[in-house]
Amino acid sequence: MKKIAVILSGCGVFDGSEIHEAVLTLLHIEKLGAHYQCFAPNIDQLHVINHLTGEVDKQAKRNVLVESARIARGEIKDIKTLDAADFDALVLPGGFGAAKNLCDFAIKGADSTINLDVKNACKQFSEHKKPAVYICIAPAIIGHIYPKGTLATIGNDADTAEQVNKLGAKHVNCAVNDFVYDENAHVISTPAYMLAGSIVEANTSIENAINKLDEVLNSK
Amino acid sequence: MKKIAVILSGCGVFDGSEIHEAVLTLLHIEKLGAHYQCFAPNIDQLHVINHLTGEVDKQAKRNVLVESARIARGEIKDIKTLDAADFDALVLPGGFGAAKNLCDFAIKGADSTINLDVKNACKQFSEHKKPAVYICIAPAIIGHIYPKGTLATIGNDADTAEQVNKLGAKHVNCAVNDFVYDENAHVISTPAYMLAGSIVEANTSIENAINKLDEVLNSK
Repeated sequence: MKKIAVILSGCGVFDGSEIHEAVLTLLHIEKLGAHYQCFAPNIDQLHVINHLTGEVDKQAKRNVLVESARIARGEIKDIKTLDAADFDALVLPGGFGAAKNLCDFAIKGADSTINLDVKNACKQFSEHKKPAVYICIAPAIIGHIYPKGTLATIGNDADTAEQVNKLGAKHVNCAVNDFVYDENAHVISTPAYMLAGSIVEANTSIENAINKLDEVLNSK
Repeated sequence: MKKIAVILSGCGVFDGSEIHEAVLTLLHIEKLGAHYQCFAPNIDQLHVINHLTGEVDKQAKRNVLVESARIARGEIKDIKTLDAADFDALVLPGGFGAAKNLCDFAIKGADSTINLDVKNACKQFSEHKKPAVYICIAPAIIGHIYPKGTLATIGNDADTAEQVNKLGAKHVNCAVNDFVYDENAHVISTPAYMLAGSIVEANTSIENAINKLDEVLNSK
């Protein structure tokens, strides 16, 4: 049975993992007949956002691993323990948490830095030529991990694409029902809620990307 | 276009809405070509549970409407404003929130009481003969809303089923890939994570129940 690691970044589109994307990622991995294991960094979130008002709750502190455990129904591990030798592939759903907690792209764009444990985890898959899927805004991490010029998409937002390019990836515009695949780096990326106007569109984006991952795994 | 109201109870299986069930509910509603609108009560959660350790965080307070907004990507309304005249049907996903925040079945079983705004919202659908779907543990609410003897399932747990019966519903054992339909009350219930061992099983449970809802709506 194929084993796929999933890196979460909290629980909620504005300060953590985008919940629909994360759940649909787990669904489509399991629909392949594969097994998933969730991981997250054991660090405080950059923000806690009240998702009803959109405002930052300045008093509140939440932990990325603890909140990610909500999506994983408690079955989650500290990303420090992620050993790529145990897995066939890696998937990172989006949400602002990918750009606030896993790295600080949401604040610093091309000048962003990445959490070192996240970097170590993702680098292992890159170095062992094991395929990975980066969804929504998570492809902002690709420039931190892969060789210069690796193809990536965050959809078609020109300003964000420019920052992705400055980080070293090569952005390709992409429709929500499509994906971009870099066949040298074995990296798939797809826009999901960077473009999706509905959960059905996000589902199509993620289903297509995970099915491509399966094709890549089967061709190895 | 059909319009379906969805009542959430927080964000996380142990103290709120079961996240997979809630997201899959929204997905399958939209796959019908229908529109969903989420609602939740503007009250404090009974508990805040650390989903990594399973322990109650006694210091923490969270609001059901604010946390439910995470699943709804901010697009959610206070349940006090739910007018069944605006909707064709109602769906309640499960998670302990349905039995801790919408009512107190998780604590009091057959002696439970239901939040009055939740009761008012659900009663409107019952009285106007508009169909409803209750998922996972949410069917514990059916006895608070529908006539004595209305068919309901929470899967096959005998102790829980006994409490559901004492509340006035008539429990029917049900496999995870099936549902129970009371054709007089127009109520569908399905076990989802009361029995599901995986997200694919939960998805099948919810997809079948929502497709049955569509059939009921189309036959009216």
